Amino acid sequence: MKYGYFNDSDREYVITRPDTPYPWINYLGNEDFFSLMSNTSGGYCFYRDARMLRLTRYRYNNVPTDAGGRYFYINDGGTVWTPGWMPVKTKLDSYECRHGMGYTKINSSLNGLTFRQTSFVPLGYPCEVHRIKLKNTTHIKKSFKMFSFVEFCLWNAWDDQTNFQRNFSIGEVEVIGSTIYHKTEYRERRNHYAVFHVNAPVDGFDTDRESFMGLYNGFDRPDAVFEGKARNSVASGWAPVGSHMINVELEAGEEKSFIFVLGYCENPGDEKWEAQDVINKAPAKRLIEAFSTDEQVDKALASLHDYWEKLLSTYSVKSADEKLDRMVNTWNQYQCMVTFNMSRSASYFESGIGRGMGFRDSTQDLLGFVHLIPERARERIYDIAATQMEDGSAYHQYQPLTKKGNSDIGSGFNDDPLWLIFGVAAYIKETGDKSILDDTVPFDNDEAKAAPMMEHLKRSFDHVTNNLGPHGLPLIGHADWNDCLNLNCFSETPGESFQTASNRETGDVAESVFIAGMFVSVAPDYIAMCEMKGLTAEAESAKRAAEEMYNAVMTAGWDGEWFLRAYDAFGNKVGSHECEEGQIFIEPQGFCVMGGIGVKEGYAEKALNSVKERLDTKYGIVLNNPPYTKYHVELGEISSYPPG
Amino acid sequence: MKYGYFNDSDREYVITRPDTPYPWINYLGNEDFFSLMSNTSGGYCFYRDARMLRLTRYRYNNVPTDAGGRYFYINDGGTVWTPGWMPVKTKLDSYECRHGMGYTKINSSLNGLTFRQTSFVPLGYPCEVHRIKLKNTTHIKKSFKMFSFVEFCLWNAWDDQTNFQRNFSIGEVEVIGSTIYHKTEYRERRNHYAVFHVNAPVDGFDTDRESFMGLYNGFDRPDAVFEGKARNSVASGWAPVGSHMINVELEAGEEKSFIFVLGYCENPGDEKWEAQDVINKAPAKRLIEAFSTDEQVDKALASLHDYWEKLLSTYSVKSADEKLDRMVNTWNQYQCMVTFNMSRSASYFESGIGRGMGFRDSTQDLLGFVHLIPERARERIYDIAATQMEDGSAYHQYQPLTKKGNSDIGSGFNDDPLWLIFGVAAYIKETGDKSILDDTVPFDNDEAKAAPMMEHLKRSFDHVTNNLGPHGLPLIGHADWNDCLNLNCFSETPGESFQTASNRETGDVAESVFIAGMFVSVAPDYIAMCEMKGLTAEAESAKRAAEEMYNAVMTAGWDGEWFLRAYDAFGNKVGSHECEEGQIFIEPQGFCVMGGIGVKEGYAEKALNSVKERLDTKYGIVLNNPPYTKYHVELGEISSYPPG
Repeated sequence: MKYGYFNDSDREYVITRPDTPYPWINYLGNEDFFSLMSNTSGGYCFYRDARMLRLTRYRYNNVPTDAGGRYFYINDGGTVWTPGWMPVKTKLDSYECRHGMGYTKINSSLNGLTFRQTSFVPLGYPCEVHRIKLKNTTHIKKSFKMFSFVEFCLWNAWDDQTNFQRNFSIGEVEVIGSTIYHKTEYRERRNHYAVFHVNAPVDGFDTDRESFMGLYNGFDRPDAVFEGKARNSVASGWAPVGSHMINVELEAGEEKSFIFVLGYCENPGDEKWEAQDVINKAPAKRLIEAFSTDEQVDKALASLHDYWEKLLSTYSVKSADEKLDRMVNTWNQYQCMVTFNMSRSASYFESGIGRGMGFRDSTQDLLGFVHLIPERARERIYDIAATQMEDGSAYHQYQPLTKKGNSDIGSGFNDDPLWLIFGVAAYIKETGDKSILDDTVPFDNDEAKAAPMMEHLKRSFDHVTNNLGPHGLPLIGHADWNDCLNLNCFSETPGESFQTASNRETGDVAESVFIAGMFVSVAPDYIAMCEMKGLTAEAESAKRAAEEMYNAVMTAGWDGEWFLRAYDAFGNKVGSHECEEGQIFIEPQGFCVMGGIGVKEGYAEKALNSVKERLDTKYGIVLNNPPYTKYHVELGEISSYPPG
Repeated sequence: MKYGYFNDSDREYVITRPDTPYPWINYLGNEDFFSLMSNTSGGYCFYRDARMLRLTRYRYNNVPTDAGGRYFYINDGGTVWTPGWMPVKTKLDSYECRHGMGYTKINSSLNGLTFRQTSFVPLGYPCEVHRIKLKNTTHIKKSFKMFSFVEFCLWNAWDDQTNFQRNFSIGEVEVIGSTIYHKTEYRERRNHYAVFHVNAPVDGFDTDRESFMGLYNGFDRPDAVFEGKARNSVASGWAPVGSHMINVELEAGEEKSFIFVLGYCENPGDEKWEAQDVINKAPAKRLIEAFSTDEQVDKALASLHDYWEKLLSTYSVKSADEKLDRMVNTWNQYQCMVTFNMSRSASYFESGIGRGMGFRDSTQDLLGFVHLIPERARERIYDIAATQMEDGSAYHQYQPLTKKGNSDIGSGFNDDPLWLIFGVAAYIKETGDKSILDDTVPFDNDEAKAAPMMEHLKRSFDHVTNNLGPHGLPLIGHADWNDCLNLNCFSETPGESFQTASNRETGDVAESVFIAGMFVSVAPDYIAMCEMKGLTAEAESAKRAAEEMYNAVMTAGWDGEWFLRAYDAFGNKVGSHECEEGQIFIEPQGFCVMGGIGVKEGYAEKALNSVKERLDTKYGIVLNNPPYTKYHVELGEISSYPPG
């Protein structure tokens, strides 16, 4: 079954039938505002933090799938359809979805009416823009109705899906002309609201979900749409939504354009009100005025295009392999920018509620985008380093809004600290800017504990040498790159996170060959940076440490045909031919070889051949984070692992 | 619009059309197993704890509403219908739903096929039973297909709706004949699984949701049902469901019965397996064998009927007012039993995730059921008292499984302690059993801090006198009965709970006239219990304290026409004619009058008249926990507030 193709010249993936095996999504977004958008119009958007400031409601794991999005319903003489096929699922005369760089287009048609939607998050504005072009391709005049529809989330996505006693009572909106304001809790503790606007007069609106849909109807059968009659409902509690109804008339061959803006508006605490009980609409006005004409939209799209072309021009490859070129030149870099922005905190499988930014994730992702946006990479390194502990260890994750380490998710993942060295080294290699080593950065977000970045790197490096196990290999701590390799702990309590479960009585003794490989790999960079800073003694000591680690791997980390994965808390080998299951792990082979371990001894080649052999026969391989099952495909996530 | 009527002789509420303004639900359950079931077949079930051990998935605030339940689809020659109308919404020839004491019946018919469903949680078994009787009322033979359907929750309802990265990979089922086992995580850390069985041979089954439904279909359009063809899918990850397909043939006038059992099965940790990798099916077998014949079901229903008749025979009233009799004799007591079991932790508005059992809620509910089940009321009092702090204060809530106080929900609700005195007094008044006062009960769940119940009551009583404010009235602490009256604190942080927000710099100085009224109300009971235990000095001192409180209310708690509500942290009156808004609160009028305050002085009558006047004109009244808006009607929740 073919669902689409790559359009390399426009850097697009073109989906040609809507019923893909799973919704295929694009990530739209700039620095602050992000939108997930599927090929069938599903998804949601948020400002900065997918948990705390979510604009629209989205229901994960729903029936049908992918419920909620930005819907545009057409009622054309009683035939109701949605251009993304879902949710109404009327059979369309034509359909395509184009996921491009920072935009998604949905183009479809039915009964002589073509619908062309371009959705994007413009640079510099906290909003998404949906431009709809409607064209009558028949020879007679067409009159029909278009209904927009979004469902507002009450900001905190976790609270939104649990605290109904409160939430059903607090919803508040305001409708003025073609502008719908979602202002729940603005009177109380929030200084932000959402705005949903269309640049045309409306013939009706709805803001109360039940009035629009009917209590017992799905998104596929909203009463207002099927009856062709907006209710002009003003939500008070329950579920606030935003829907504009527009009666459209198109002469034969005529085309009309409508621009919808859905945005986040924030005011300073002391400028919340224009007058008593009148919300300050200035930020909404700014968005509305910025996208009120096709020219403005065209210009914003051109800027977006230029932005991506410039970014992607930094680095490109031309090889004999079109697939390699496509991935390297476009999609892999695009994905790296997505992970820069979101660090996996929100996707179609991450609900945006449970996790923040990973210390390791964010640093390794950085290796993929440092050449694109070095200044912002530097800021990111600073944020990450500021969550490091004084002993060199790290919180495993931190919250994007507070930038504080999150102990709920655990710590003690002993590969984490080394990633910081990789990140800083990559920054210097890319930019030549060594001043980053002098940046003063807090430990544990405490300014009183600030120290130069070079000192952070030293703590990272020393954290490994200070935590060696019985074989002279690095202690794995709670786990390493393979988050599930929790060798020191086990939990028998349902629901207890392995990431935070306490260690066995044997203590923290398990060792990681993977971290050893990382250590040897990063040592030359670390030594070079020490030398840059004139830390000769430290450089010498690091050289010795790297040599010792090299030898420890050669002695205790080699299994005869490949590198071991680890030693568990009982001293048993993990990833050995002696094991009943999981005899070989790909991870240490990669990193040990990248560190040059066993190259001259011929071990490296042997190890890689062992991997290749098993990849070829697909036998016995334990991949880290294997793709779960059949449909775990998100366009934006292609090639996200590993960065090396 | 009329949606139904009370059938007093059978103690049922009969719903005569399915599209009620909101789903109208019944609570089925015994001590351990609970089911919420709506008139359109929606709802879910859990074992003991709605968050930790949820058997079936339910989506709150969904579109359409009430998505998920125990569905029975009929495909009768291509016409597909569901007897509860939802989710397929085919127009039925007849429909009724009967919510009775511990059971719900749904009876409907279409095209000469009648469907009669009786659903209940049998006494003594951790399961729900659904008996389906199908009858051909035509004069020709009928052949059709019936599909059962439930969707399994992966036990932890919170994790189930957020942790998709993991959850989509772990689902596991087993199908043997007509029995579907949902055994996700059983191999790992759980010693429990769910079973879904029908007492008849099946002609197919499904356990993978997508195979059954189709990815883009709602519950209203499952592919398997509409095509009349089960997929015999075996879930591995993604969304495990349970569906039996049965080809039914009915001669003219013939009726057949099918018994479905959906249950919770737990094994001791060392008896999880019958053999290597074969789960111990003994607990499932026990359920299946207990409900394999109509006779067994009839007997279980009779037992359930007897159980309720016996319970409800304890106390009844016959008045000239049929509505009063109905509420007092049946529904209010039924509701009290529901709150005994769940203490509001799960409903159609409480997601069963966010809260445990309330200290106050559980004690005040007890006043409503102590006459029904005094032994269990005594256990409940014990549980509650064991969460009390040594200074007499209380955690505001505790978790039903651990019975430990939950500090996440806050403490310092200064009416909480007094409820314990009401509860114990009610128990003694009902049973005459004074030995409860000698029960040794821990403070803060610490056996080392155990003390007699009488000492707990003293700490409760003294907690008020030890915490008096500037006017000699009780400090309100974080709030009182009105949880939202957070007079000492304010939060400007979105999402921060007012229940746990810290106090203003002015400190904890706000006072509650409501608690004063409670104190004076409960004092006679407390004094009587002191005297029972020979605590003469304590009794005398309590008398003086009550008199002083009486006087404090008369002096500082009277507003001229009614009782004040409180003084806030700045010493301002709350609930006074001087206030711009909220001039009168009903709560202190009730409790002060129940305490006899101002009766002889004529204040009590004046206060109640002030209330009545405003209730009559519906002006200016601030009700505690007002019914939110139009549709907050749950059959089981009628009259849950207040207990007095």
